[in-house]
Amino acid sequence: MINILFAAKSERWDSYKDALNSALQAEALEAEVGQNFDPTEVDYIIYAPNSDLQDFAPYIRAKAVLNLWAGVEHVVHNPSLQIPLARMVERGLTEGMVEWVTGHVLRHHLGMDAQITGQTGDWVVDYPPLARDRRVGVLGLGELGLACAYALSGLRFDVAGWSRSAKQVDDIETYSGKDGLADILFRSDILVLLLPQTPETENVINERTLGQLPEGAVIINPGRGGLIDDDALLAALDNGHIGHATLDVFRTEPLPKDHPYWGHPKVTVTPHIASATRVATSCVSLAENIRRMEDGQPLIGLVDRSRAY
Amino acid sequence: MINILFAAKSERWDSYKDALNSALQAEALEAEVGQNFDPTEVDYIIYAPNSDLQDFAPYIRAKAVLNLWAGVEHVVHNPSLQIPLARMVERGLTEGMVEWVTGHVLRHHLGMDAQITGQTGDWVVDYPPLARDRRVGVLGLGELGLACAYALSGLRFDVAGWSRSAKQVDDIETYSGKDGLADILFRSDILVLLLPQTPETENVINERTLGQLPEGAVIINPGRGGLIDDDALLAALDNGHIGHATLDVFRTEPLPKDHPYWGHPKVTVTPHIASATRVATSCVSLAENIRRMEDGQPLIGLVDRSRAY
Repeated sequence: MINILFAAKSERWDSYKDALNSALQAEALEAEVGQNFDPTEVDYIIYAPNSDLQDFAPYIRAKAVLNLWAGVEHVVHNPSLQIPLARMVERGLTEGMVEWVTGHVLRHHLGMDAQITGQTGDWVVDYPPLARDRRVGVLGLGELGLACAYALSGLRFDVAGWSRSAKQVDDIETYSGKDGLADILFRSDILVLLLPQTPETENVINERTLGQLPEGAVIINPGRGGLIDDDALLAALDNGHIGHATLDVFRTEPLPKDHPYWGHPKVTVTPHIASATRVATSCVSLAENIRRMEDGQPLIGLVDRSRAY
Repeated sequence: MINILFAAKSERWDSYKDALNSALQAEALEAEVGQNFDPTEVDYIIYAPNSDLQDFAPYIRAKAVLNLWAGVEHVVHNPSLQIPLARMVERGLTEGMVEWVTGHVLRHHLGMDAQITGQTGDWVVDYPPLARDRRVGVLGLGELGLACAYALSGLRFDVAGWSRSAKQVDDIETYSGKDGLADILFRSDILVLLLPQTPETENVINERTLGQLPEGAVIINPGRGGLIDDDALLAALDNGHIGHATLDVFRTEPLPKDHPYWGHPKVTVTPHIASATRVATSCVSLAENIRRMEDGQPLIGLVDRSRAY
């Protein structure tokens, strides 16, 4: 019998319980999953970084921590965590992200806001350029960034991608490293942030890098709140250099009611909905990963602790 | 020497002149193109249906009329037109349409309007379903309808298509005929109208067919204004059965300032911009079609007069 601790806010348990048991059964695993085990008897920990469990030391038998979220920055540096950690990799997370990013890129590309908010009775014909003439930059070429870059490229946007270390990707122009960052910013009418949050990526969008974007550029951030120096972004929006920012993630969530992003005419706030772990598909991924580890196969989404993502 | 009459509003001539001459040269055609020829000396007519030319009879030598627009309903029934007529088929027209349709489908799918218009400071987390769980129906499986259906299917929307006569399309569920119309309406959360305007398609969206759509369905019309019975649509929006209509085409354009669509909280008007003939790409297509006819090849976009599209 495999004991699986579900370490997340208890309100999550109700929605996961049945789907998780079905998925474990489908993988033919004899497992018991629940919120209460003696720590010394736990084999796997399904983990939400905002759960009460912060000290992994008592879980002496546990083989792996399976994160419920794609982001691991709130757990990866926990010194008590000495066993393998896997990010959530699941279909729904990627598909939801592709839909949100593609939708907001098309929204800005087509200039939809003027028509959604301004039904004035004035028939002003103004054609947007074709996607092939719109340059989109995607910072971050992990699972999510790559999927978005491919979807946008499939719609014929002029897409380029940036990653910390050099990466070759079919049909997409790639940049890497510090010099490459300046180069991709220079050619990005629309910039999508899908980097993990690490000490290196914190405030990657700051006064200097904002200045490297073309006049009127649009920033779309479904990645992590800490990627952006908020004061620098607000200044660039106010002085007109940046045209618009559509932000889904923030340093503090929920975004405080008095934050200047709310109600700013050039900012769209969405409440961290770009992508979510979907219960059904994520339970399939969790059960598959446990079965893989039991079979001695590598975990999907295994976090490289030296890179912190 | 081939004489090509450019029969469109004269303000169009300035933007087309150079691109057309380059494209003709690229096809190695010895041609003269202009707005003034003796009708008896014209070999081809490049034609915008809103031009002053409405009597084709004097053009006794002309071999074909090449429409500048994708829609031919304002020329196809002209009794003086006895020579082949070709619709505009060009990359920019299709790509622009795919971008507009995909953008507005994603906009409604993601529920963007609430966030674009309502930056209230309230952090209300509400995840849309995944595209795979959103049913989109595309009425019309011609060049444009098919391209849109494929793009939406590529984003994993649950896409079905309808055409007057049965059509098999890879990866897309298809319906046809009168019974098929009721079936596709029944399963369309978002309905995209890309039918040609013919006597059979006029008012295809009427009180009865609106009633066959699911509660809260969204209608997107980048096709033709006459496809919709406007009074029936307004009634269905007002009684809540239809959730929203995003309309790019109208019976009268520009849409009159006092039309109830303007300012209606459940209607978005866009000023016939979903797709436009782009000068550069359309000139390439026009020159290619003239070269094809000179070589005895079939015209691309040749209109079947019996079907009127």
